[in-house]
Amino acid sequence: MNIGAGKKLSGRLNELTATEIVRLVSAGEVTCEAVVRACLERIAQREPEVGAWHYLNPEQVIAKARDIDNGSKRGPLIGVPFGIKDIIDSCDMPTEYGSPIYRGHQPKNDATCIALGRKAGGLLLGKTVTTEFANQYPGKTRNPFDPTRTPGGSSSGSAAAVGDCMVPLAIGTQTTGSTIRPASFCGTFGYRPTYGDLRCTGVKEASGSLDTLGLIARSVEDIALYREVLLGIEPQPLPAVPRIPTIGFCRTHLWPVIEPYTQKLLEDAAQALRKAGAVVKEITPPPELERIEDAHRWISSFEFARNFTWEIENHWEGISGRLRGGRIKDGLSCTYEKYVESRNFAEKCRMDFGQIFGDCDVLLAASATGEAPVGTNSTGNVSPSAIWTTVHVPVMTIPVFKGPHGLPVGAQLVARRNDDRKLFSSAQWIYRQLT
Amino acid sequence: MNIGAGKKLSGRLNELTATEIVRLVSAGEVTCEAVVRACLERIAQREPEVGAWHYLNPEQVIAKARDIDNGSKRGPLIGVPFGIKDIIDSCDMPTEYGSPIYRGHQPKNDATCIALGRKAGGLLLGKTVTTEFANQYPGKTRNPFDPTRTPGGSSSGSAAAVGDCMVPLAIGTQTTGSTIRPASFCGTFGYRPTYGDLRCTGVKEASGSLDTLGLIARSVEDIALYREVLLGIEPQPLPAVPRIPTIGFCRTHLWPVIEPYTQKLLEDAAQALRKAGAVVKEITPPPELERIEDAHRWISSFEFARNFTWEIENHWEGISGRLRGGRIKDGLSCTYEKYVESRNFAEKCRMDFGQIFGDCDVLLAASATGEAPVGTNSTGNVSPSAIWTTVHVPVMTIPVFKGPHGLPVGAQLVARRNDDRKLFSSAQWIYRQLT
Repeated sequence: MNIGAGKKLSGRLNELTATEIVRLVSAGEVTCEAVVRACLERIAQREPEVGAWHYLNPEQVIAKARDIDNGSKRGPLIGVPFGIKDIIDSCDMPTEYGSPIYRGHQPKNDATCIALGRKAGGLLLGKTVTTEFANQYPGKTRNPFDPTRTPGGSSSGSAAAVGDCMVPLAIGTQTTGSTIRPASFCGTFGYRPTYGDLRCTGVKEASGSLDTLGLIARSVEDIALYREVLLGIEPQPLPAVPRIPTIGFCRTHLWPVIEPYTQKLLEDAAQALRKAGAVVKEITPPPELERIEDAHRWISSFEFARNFTWEIENHWEGISGRLRGGRIKDGLSCTYEKYVESRNFAEKCRMDFGQIFGDCDVLLAASATGEAPVGTNSTGNVSPSAIWTTVHVPVMTIPVFKGPHGLPVGAQLVARRNDDRKLFSSAQWIYRQLT
Repeated sequence: MNIGAGKKLSGRLNELTATEIVRLVSAGEVTCEAVVRACLERIAQREPEVGAWHYLNPEQVIAKARDIDNGSKRGPLIGVPFGIKDIIDSCDMPTEYGSPIYRGHQPKNDATCIALGRKAGGLLLGKTVTTEFANQYPGKTRNPFDPTRTPGGSSSGSAAAVGDCMVPLAIGTQTTGSTIRPASFCGTFGYRPTYGDLRCTGVKEASGSLDTLGLIARSVEDIALYREVLLGIEPQPLPAVPRIPTIGFCRTHLWPVIEPYTQKLLEDAAQALRKAGAVVKEITPPPELERIEDAHRWISSFEFARNFTWEIENHWEGISGRLRGGRIKDGLSCTYEKYVESRNFAEKCRMDFGQIFGDCDVLLAASATGEAPVGTNSTGNVSPSAIWTTVHVPVMTIPVFKGPHGLPVGAQLVARRNDDRKLFSSAQWIYRQLT
């Protein structure tokens, strides 16, 4: 078992959270270079087994770390190394989108999320492995807790790198469950923001009406900090003593798909939270939400198949059979009428969704069916994320459980649209009770 | 006065509509090369005065036209040259986004809209002039009907090129009024689709929650054809005999901003449509819509200022003073709370907007305040588009009026979300009555 999320600071700099790094670098107690060297050492040791990185140039990043140490720059992310999913453009590192079609591709500029991270004093450590075009065909990454298992996808490298303490922060993306699932499998915090909040400029679009960034970190505080950096606003600390949230325990119609041990972990957690003083209610979403995964499939496929017209027309042989026969086939077979009907249905669900909460602050649900499955040819079942993704609400997975093999299993928290900070303070309280 | 929109076919191939070109090329009566040569001749003659093109390589496009003529390819846009606003990536032509920061920039791939146009048998003729980053700082283009006047913006070159019969189709974009206004000023049809319909992958994002493509053409049929090509579906002909629409005449609170002669043109048109057999009702939007332009400003500025973080941080000197002191200053001064409040307000307006129509099929409104203003330092008043853009509905400007200087003035038609084809058939009927 490797060092994982939630581990107490042991003095090794690669295990620090971003919040800790900012404090120590700002106080002059540690240099950005020292942090980066610790991350690079961890990577040198572990990368042959984990394979989280698609591009990494140690000399380049050490030089940039020295620039930060020697500069006068201050900022809310000062000295913090971050990893970026290789579906996102970077001006000084190649960006290949997980596809041989883009081998050696060098974008002209940084995506907004990278530029905002750098503006805040952070340091782009390298590009993390993505599945092919953030779809299903996996990259080389293995689960850092068990290399025979998938890290999840499509933000495979971002979750594995953070979970393995190679880097404190990483960005992924999510069109279905591409941040929450790998974060759950790799024992990290993972966050999908309210749809539309964090700019996706410079991210290779899969399905624009569903895509968001996804943030991966080893604490709630880090997620909150990184989010506000990426909103381009001055970060505000979370409350030191979070209010006890009212929680809706929400099994959803997918409950039979969830592993029995995960069901029990969640049910026990609901009970523990009640004992800790929270009101925990059973919430049953209306039956129409059972159709939302189908709507998601048609929306995402229709848009994906059009977005990749250039690749389909000019580089068909460079596209995996799985993508050709999956998302692209689905998308090209979907009529415009079906697409609009699905989109209208999703919009109606979005409008109605706030009512499900009643007086609850957050919902508690499964992040994934269970532990990361054995095998690296599949990235696992995406269904547990489909409802929340499609209704555009913010969600977070918190690493609070262990499965029967001692591997991480997350709990997913769901908030209303625009309630991202309430999600964070609820997550803080819940995490403290369950760990 | 130059040859303008609506002119009857005179035998000059550059004056053909896309629909006519497809018919003639498919029947073997004309070659794509001949059409392209006619367009290039028109451009050679007129470009020194109009300045519609940012990049044009005649030899390259003639070679591609020959490939189409010699190939076995068929498609709904076979043989049709199109122009693309230089805010949109092309794999074989540089893309500079109207900014010196991107001088010589060559993207790796085609934007979705280019790839779909090429897949359908169309031919990318060249890149048309955009204002700086599709914002206000103008490019070199002049109004083809009077070179002392603006062509409008930000899709300046696309509208001027189509209005001057240099090319039958062009793509622009619209975040406020960047397609409708230049189309009105240049005497063309201009169309902004239902938000979200046409993929913007490969378009440099200004404000993702408002940006759409905009299509510019010289007939309603061409707009309808091009839209379905860009949806990636099989184009369906419009009804040969359009149904008489029920029309809502909608002055809006901006009526005092509209030139008195434009007011009279619209009022006379409403009367003429009544006489032609349409029911024309007066529609007064609820007063809360008066606040929507303000919401638009904060949403677009907040998003724009973040989207351009890389340029702001690394190329501040390459950004015009107008953009720095306008959109960027506004965006950086906008709090997140103000942004979310504005976004929530815009969403509420979207949900309620359909009710305004009552039993009307379309609304009739001003496309612009009047003729293109004298001077090329400003692209004109964007306000007449702000409501419709923000509520995500499809709109079309049709070239039906002449102002006091004999210059084009459009009428804007507005439909409910997803009623794009009803918008087209209504536009067909209305255009026939008014010309």
